[in-house]
Amino acid sequence: MTQIFIESSDICEDKITVTGDSARHLKVLRPKKNETVRAVCASNGMDYLCEIEKISDDDILLKIVDVEATSRELPVRITIYQGMPKADKLEFVIQKSVEMGAVSIVPVMMKRSIVRLDEAKASKKLERWNSIAKSAAEQSKRTEIPEVKKLVPIKEALIAASADDAILLPYELTAVGKTGDEDETKPGLSDMDHTRKLLTDLKDKGIRSISVFIGPEGGFDPSEVEAAVDAGAHIITLGRRILRTETAPVAILAWLTYIFEE
Amino acid sequence: MTQIFIESSDICEDKITVTGDSARHLKVLRPKKNETVRAVCASNGMDYLCEIEKISDDDILLKIVDVEATSRELPVRITIYQGMPKADKLEFVIQKSVEMGAVSIVPVMMKRSIVRLDEAKASKKLERWNSIAKSAAEQSKRTEIPEVKKLVPIKEALIAASADDAILLPYELTAVGKTGDEDETKPGLSDMDHTRKLLTDLKDKGIRSISVFIGPEGGFDPSEVEAAVDAGAHIITLGRRILRTETAPVAILAWLTYIFEE
Repeated sequence: MTQIFIESSDICEDKITVTGDSARHLKVLRPKKNETVRAVCASNGMDYLCEIEKISDDDILLKIVDVEATSRELPVRITIYQGMPKADKLEFVIQKSVEMGAVSIVPVMMKRSIVRLDEAKASKKLERWNSIAKSAAEQSKRTEIPEVKKLVPIKEALIAASADDAILLPYELTAVGKTGDEDETKPGLSDMDHTRKLLTDLKDKGIRSISVFIGPEGGFDPSEVEAAVDAGAHIITLGRRILRTETAPVAILAWLTYIFEE
Repeated sequence: MTQIFIESSDICEDKITVTGDSARHLKVLRPKKNETVRAVCASNGMDYLCEIEKISDDDILLKIVDVEATSRELPVRITIYQGMPKADKLEFVIQKSVEMGAVSIVPVMMKRSIVRLDEAKASKKLERWNSIAKSAAEQSKRTEIPEVKKLVPIKEALIAASADDAILLPYELTAVGKTGDEDETKPGLSDMDHTRKLLTDLKDKGIRSISVFIGPEGGFDPSEVEAAVDAGAHIITLGRRILRTETAPVAILAWLTYIFEE
């Protein structure tokens, strides 16, 4: 359906007058009278389903036929457990993960994390991280402001993640299909086929929450992968190219959007 | 299949001795004798299919059963036509697009591009952009070094893109399914369903090359969308959240990886 952005001042009773840029946008799509259009009002958080009533030279008049509260949220709640990278990379991960729909980001101290967080500065850092999350949420018109939680050791992170319906762990040294649950190993499928099958199965099962573990710059220590697999994590591949630690959360969030978005 | 990284010095005739970190990685996955393992040698670009011959305390001995040249390339050739953003954002787009598998990146002057490129500095810039592409290709172990082409106006970009099997244009003001080919409009499907159907249809048709157009910070001008649709572009959505100009190419490349990677 054609979608346009409006301001709340464009609305008058059951009509919306679309002017300026939005009208130009709409006209490009060669709208017809009575055609249905979704008018999104970011400022009041509502979506208006409308019919086109009149197309003039300068503006387009819409008649509102239905109103619904907008949701910009994914139907699955995703937490990114990010192996603590260098400071600027974590800020990047926070900004991009919020933009891509994660509901929370948890920095995780892993064996190969280079940065050690100064306890005294920790609460100030956390404040800064959450303000980055807030701006990114506003920018991408999220209806929920994701939370950045305090840095935890991986053991604690795995316990917290176990509350979610699934744990994913992208691992460049893939042994995709190998998990605590040995039945998942289906010989003959490529790593990508395994991963696609696993993720679409999760969707088909109607799961509602996913934790994703991302290694830091130096990758996971083998003992961490082992602990995650013991906690029920599914090892997946993100494709044949080696992704940087800060790119991996964007890629998996994009995949989950592709699979789960309605 | 379990995959490990090796050095060419680990290979001796038809055996590979896996030591150190790679051996620890492999052991975490509790390998069994005779199990098949893929040993990836980034330095000589070869993949070795091996059987585990002997597992010792410190190392693992593999017997090579097959060798193949590694391909880290996507089975579909993707060009990112990036609406010229601010300088640091373009560098980000180049780095991430290379990491995610694009074969070329073309900066495109669009109506809402803020930056105007100084003709005198253009060749120096292009050199810098290509050196960013080269480092990113090495980092992500690409076997092909993607090229950053010189800045072109959108008209020229659309002509060049027409040589590809498909043109995609993610558009936040979605009218997904509306293209030059009106038959694609299937009422009743959500924008996401439309987009998923379109992309999987492209995969099923066996297409080999895709051009993706990304708007600059201010988005596309309506006339640009119109010109792209006239050139055969398919309008798609990237989900319900508004992505920044530099995030959109990462998201679409992730989607195309998910769909096309073998």
